[in-house]
Amino acid sequence: MSMNSFGHLFRITTWGESHGPALGATVDGCPPGVPIDEAMIQHWLDRRKPGQNKYTTQRREADEVKILSGVFEGQTTGTPVQLMIENTDQRSKDYGDIKDKFRPGHADITYFQKYGIRDYRGGGRSSARETAARVAAGGLAREAIRALAPNVQITGYMVQMGPHRIDRARFDWAQIEQNPFWVPDARAAADWADYLDGLRKSGSSVGAVIEVVARGVPAGLGAPVYGKLDTDLAAAMMSINAVKGVEIGEGMGAAELTGEANADEIFMGQNGPQYSSNHAGGILGGISTGQDIVVRFAVKPTSSILTTRKTITKSGEETEIITKGRHDPCVGIRAVPVGEAMMACVILDHLLLHRGQIGANRGHIG
Amino acid sequence: MSMNSFGHLFRITTWGESHGPALGATVDGCPPGVPIDEAMIQHWLDRRKPGQNKYTTQRREADEVKILSGVFEGQTTGTPVQLMIENTDQRSKDYGDIKDKFRPGHADITYFQKYGIRDYRGGGRSSARETAARVAAGGLAREAIRALAPNVQITGYMVQMGPHRIDRARFDWAQIEQNPFWVPDARAAADWADYLDGLRKSGSSVGAVIEVVARGVPAGLGAPVYGKLDTDLAAAMMSINAVKGVEIGEGMGAAELTGEANADEIFMGQNGPQYSSNHAGGILGGISTGQDIVVRFAVKPTSSILTTRKTITKSGEETEIITKGRHDPCVGIRAVPVGEAMMACVILDHLLLHRGQIGANRGHIG
Amino acid sequence: MSMNSFGHLFRITTWGESHGPALGATVDGCPPGVPIDEAMIQHWLDRRKPGQNKYTTQRREADEVKILSGVFEGQTTGTPVQLMIENTDQRSKDYGDIKDKFRPGHADITYFQKYGIRDYRGGGRSSARETAARVAAGGLAREAIRALAPNVQITGYMVQMGPHRIDRARFDWAQIEQNPFWVPDARAAADWADYLDGLRKSGSSVGAVIEVVARGVPAGLGAPVYGKLDTDLAAAMMSINAVKGVEIGEGMGAAELTGEANADEIFMGQNGPQYSSNHAGGILGGISTGQDIVVRFAVKPTSSILTTRKTITKSGEETEIITKGRHDPCVGIRAVPVGEAMMACVILDHLLLHRGQIGANRGHIG
Amino acid sequence: MSMNSFGHLFRITTWGESHGPALGATVDGCPPGVPIDEAMIQHWLDRRKPGQNKYTTQRREADEVKILSGVFEGQTTGTPVQLMIENTDQRSKDYGDIKDKFRPGHADITYFQKYGIRDYRGGGRSSARETAARVAAGGLAREAIRALAPNVQITGYMVQMGPHRIDRARFDWAQIEQNPFWVPDARAAADWADYLDGLRKSGSSVGAVIEVVARGVPAGLGAPVYGKLDTDLAAAMMSINAVKGVEIGEGMGAAELTGEANADEIFMGQNGPQYSSNHAGGILGGISTGQDIVVRFAVKPTSSILTTRKTITKSGEETEIITKGRHDPCVGIRAVPVGEAMMACVILDHLLLHRGQIGANRGHIG
Repeated sequence: MSMNSFGHLFRITTWGESHGPALGATVDGCPPGVPIDEAMIQHWLDRRKPGQNKYTTQRREADEVKILSGVFEGQTTGTPVQLMIENTDQRSKDYGDIKDKFRPGHADITYFQKYGIRDYRGGGRSSARETAARVAAGGLAREAIRALAPNVQITGYMVQMGPHRIDRARFDWAQIEQNPFWVPDARAAADWADYLDGLRKSGSSVGAVIEVVARGVPAGLGAPVYGKLDTDLAAAMMSINAVKGVEIGEGMGAAELTGEANADEIFMGQNGPQYSSNHAGGILGGISTGQDIVVRFAVKPTSSILTTRKTITKSGEETEIITKGRHDPCVGIRAVPVGEAMMACVILDHLLLHRGQIGANRGHIG
Repeated sequence: MSMNSFGHLFRITTWGESHGPALGATVDGCPPGVPIDEAMIQHWLDRRKPGQNKYTTQRREADEVKILSGVFEGQTTGTPVQLMIENTDQRSKDYGDIKDKFRPGHADITYFQKYGIRDYRGGGRSSARETAARVAAGGLAREAIRALAPNVQITGYMVQMGPHRIDRARFDWAQIEQNPFWVPDARAAADWADYLDGLRKSGSSVGAVIEVVARGVPAGLGAPVYGKLDTDLAAAMMSINAVKGVEIGEGMGAAELTGEANADEIFMGQNGPQYSSNHAGGILGGISTGQDIVVRFAVKPTSSILTTRKTITKSGEETEIITKGRHDPCVGIRAVPVGEAMMACVILDHLLLHRGQIGANRGHIG
Repeated sequence: MSMNSFGHLFRITTWGESHGPALGATVDGCPPGVPIDEAMIQHWLDRRKPGQNKYTTQRREADEVKILSGVFEGQTTGTPVQLMIENTDQRSKDYGDIKDKFRPGHADITYFQKYGIRDYRGGGRSSARETAARVAAGGLAREAIRALAPNVQITGYMVQMGPHRIDRARFDWAQIEQNPFWVPDARAAADWADYLDGLRKSGSSVGAVIEVVARGVPAGLGAPVYGKLDTDLAAAMMSINAVKGVEIGEGMGAAELTGEANADEIFMGQNGPQYSSNHAGGILGGISTGQDIVVRFAVKPTSSILTTRKTITKSGEETEIITKGRHDPCVGIRAVPVGEAMMACVILDHLLLHRGQIGANRGHIG
Repeated sequence: MSMNSFGHLFRITTWGESHGPALGATVDGCPPGVPIDEAMIQHWLDRRKPGQNKYTTQRREADEVKILSGVFEGQTTGTPVQLMIENTDQRSKDYGDIKDKFRPGHADITYFQKYGIRDYRGGGRSSARETAARVAAGGLAREAIRALAPNVQITGYMVQMGPHRIDRARFDWAQIEQNPFWVPDARAAADWADYLDGLRKSGSSVGAVIEVVARGVPAGLGAPVYGKLDTDLAAAMMSINAVKGVEIGEGMGAAELTGEANADEIFMGQNGPQYSSNHAGGILGGISTGQDIVVRFAVKPTSSILTTRKTITKSGEETEIITKGRHDPCVGIRAVPVGEAMMACVILDHLLLHRGQIGANRGHIG
């Protein structure tokens, strides 16, 4: 019942503060025999690295991962894998100013009230730095999925930045890796570049919506009622810093649909059941259907902006605060690899769980 | 690691099929000394009962709860409480028609594929009947909260039916118990009555959005990173049948906001920190702020409608299906007490968890 | 993290007080497709029934199990199975005398101190009556094992009653079901009968040692480091009422052996590795070797004896107490089916867990 | 459900192989505000260090612990604490000989069969080196206990080496830290020194029995039925390498006692209930009584001895094996600090769990 662990059989425990010596993930339950080395994990981490483009935080972190256990002669052993990332660039002086003030919209105040002590440097444990550990663990999950279920593909991308939504008619998978926003729409990429430049210069910020799709996932994953696949995905995404909403398939929009509009009719394909549509987002009754699993989550705008905000100090005095230094106009961009990592962890976990509880799907249609 | 259990210290395990002998909830970890009896639980169950008004399913269920353990001389003992509800009105013949067909939008097909066997009567374990067990458990949670944290109030209500949203300017708490929709807006109640009549007659259905608010919750609840209060609430609501989206505070709408618009500034009130607004929905960094905790979830329209849908049989033949008999034009209405029940379970769980991990809040401001 | 649940994938939650309306087990994670009905579970319960012979408690309980969920058309569905046993013969008046007194050696005092409330009738939740629920759940586990791993045989028997040990040279499996003590030694059965008669008449009691063997268990079960097979077996047996010690293989006696004496040398048999001996009790490094898994546990003598004992009342007054009515000269006898049930639950759990985490054994020798 | 995690609220996850880069413990749920630094943890580790005396392994390890997270300005923050120990002295060449052979009595063969891959150097994950991580975590637990329940004292000592038992009449707490065996009996210390010299020279080994006592533990700890204090202690000790038996109080010896002999009568002391004896080992019904909690566990003799043993290779060939190099004549000696560490982890866990579930004891006597 670790509060810092996530997963059933494939279970990650993250640790580390933004400005502590290091951070990392203890990954328990990775199947043995998965080919892995530091470079393979590093590949996934590099996609998250800030400073990668001018739109994300200018904090230059090496984000170099070390594997301290659980791997032998190039393969996982089935024992816990310790992934460690040492913090190298922290620029403490950026934060010294807020030692006694609580930044509005951040967890400073709640961490202080609860724990009575908080590492105020960079938000300590509440910092989005923790997501680096998730991305590392997610990299290991992806490699395990590659070994266990090679047809599975996990891809995340932005579908909304502030008020700007992509045009689904222009959706192009190939665009995702071609622009700094991981947006599958070349025109949106261009528009958003200008939009974000404006925000950055004015010291403002906006939120975003990220969509993560898992294709090629076999039907049958998910453990009703409280281990449903969508339940675990909702928890996975909501646990990410700054997330305020999670959707599966039609999501909140399902409320507006009629039963006729929302139904995914079933017919028989060459390889088994097929569906006329995918309003369900690939999950029915908490179990995967074999269709694309579609999850979206909304990231709120960062509160670390260059506008003065009213707040209080630890001693209850009213004051003002302004965040200097590093500033992310849209933290949502960085959440794309994090959403992918969480999807990978959940999918792998459920591949193992299904195998454990059931073996293989027992119901054959046709 | 039960897949049918939910919660950390206050932990419920539900069991039972729609048409089995009974269903219920094994509630573990309820603190001792809570005054409770069957009538008190029954009160909460009665709010969920179908047939209560003409807008919900005409299935007449007594839904009579029995307490089989964990209570002695009118108080909980701290041992597991078994809440059992016997199924009395099942009208098997309504379902015999779909023994071999999979109803689109339901879990019939995924349950069959995964388990190789499914109790097809009324959806078996996948039926929303399971939520009766949650409501019973939630009733016990409410009584424990009454003993432990009497200032806490939990209230759920509908904010959207199909495309129709309430007008927040007319929000009136007193209306909630005055109409069959638990909607805090008298005009909406009238409009929706007509709307739903139309849907019912045409055999159609729509979705809904339910909002649940917990007021008077002290600051400090929630266990980052993966036991965050919003993470557990997201899981709790997403696990409810037919839910496709969960939001906290601004929810998906947070994506559109700027950092300035979204910030809840902090000032000092008489009894401690106060906030200028509540975009956060009462949770920062996964920990409660002391503000109202605001959760919303979207329920998709039921697929059990009176329109013929295309589907397949177990043997892979393409066919059609139409649901006769009972039909819910808006299952979302029934989800209101279920959302409240889940909120109660999570809040109680976190009251206990916080007390266990921390004792009491350790950080005093002022 | 239910405190009343046991197991990882095959997980039982027991509930119920000695004198409450009912008791039972919620069994989660039983694989689907296991043929089961009430008679099959009843068979295992009947072996535990008191009043079965003159040596165990004269409390006549029907101990009739009902299956309330999780079974459809004669097979498990993979959903939770609720096993309920209604309490029918309780003879309340036997216990009314001790409402305010704490019986030495029983949990009366600790339950009262912890919970502030205790169902004093028959020990409430602390009563060995709880083990009836375990035996029912264990019956289901056995049937699932029969379907999943039919070579596995689980057998429990007494090896010691008070100071009297069996003679291993006379060990005879066939004797186990032939006498009221489940002892694999005909002479011991005769001797113990006289011995126990003496104890019963004098109102005294003794302890016992029970051994449970699981034969035919494949190598590879167990999840180091904290889910080791012996770790889970130790927890399983120690959780049984009145148990004070647990041993694997040589047990406490391993301390006296030299490395040479204790070693089980390895050679190659027809079907794989074979061992020259089994000091290890079938488990090495927490993982099964394929040899017989041998577990022993010691049950203390019941404190409910017909001798006056000194104790105190709830208000702190010193007083005396004597237990009238039902009296078990050797509660250990009844623990034999309970030990078997726990072994079955753990073995099944690990069969599933191994399959989930690893699939099948990956290392082939030869 | 990590298989490499232990505990409910205070939860440790150990990681690391004997010859990997490092090993450690991720400690989740340590209460905030506990004064801690590396020197304080190091103190506890130093007690375990091999090479400390001529009776334990001559492997010289620095065993230097680093705290990588969870501590700020000298106090725990309530976030995960990462304790890392880098492996510095491994002498790989000692093990190269057994790359393909399975050492009898070790986990080599079962790890290979299960995982299909094993880090054969020093036993990899199955090595007792893992206990260094436990001792570090246990050190943190002790400091938290010092802050939370300062009256609690945890002490471990040997009571048996091979066939030699201490004389309880000569029991002297002050002797424990005065000899290399942590034995509370000066004469035994002298006798055992000679005995062990003989074993060491002959290349043999023996087992041992370690007793761990927790004094000053308040009544009320333990969460029946499956979170009983003795259940968790049994699991904690049985999970230690080479342990084959666990006892509470009278342990296996309780079987021989009569009800009269075993009863701990209750009377009223100045500060509450007192007991005439402690056959129960401080636990009744799984809950602490306030008396000394007495646990014993038996460690088998190491199989790494200087006698040739028969075994097989990975390819199934019969062969012989002899362990050269480091050799521990009695690994049980090193288990004393490990037993203490596990006791500390369990006691702290239950202090928190009790506080969470119940608050404080609710039943007052007197």
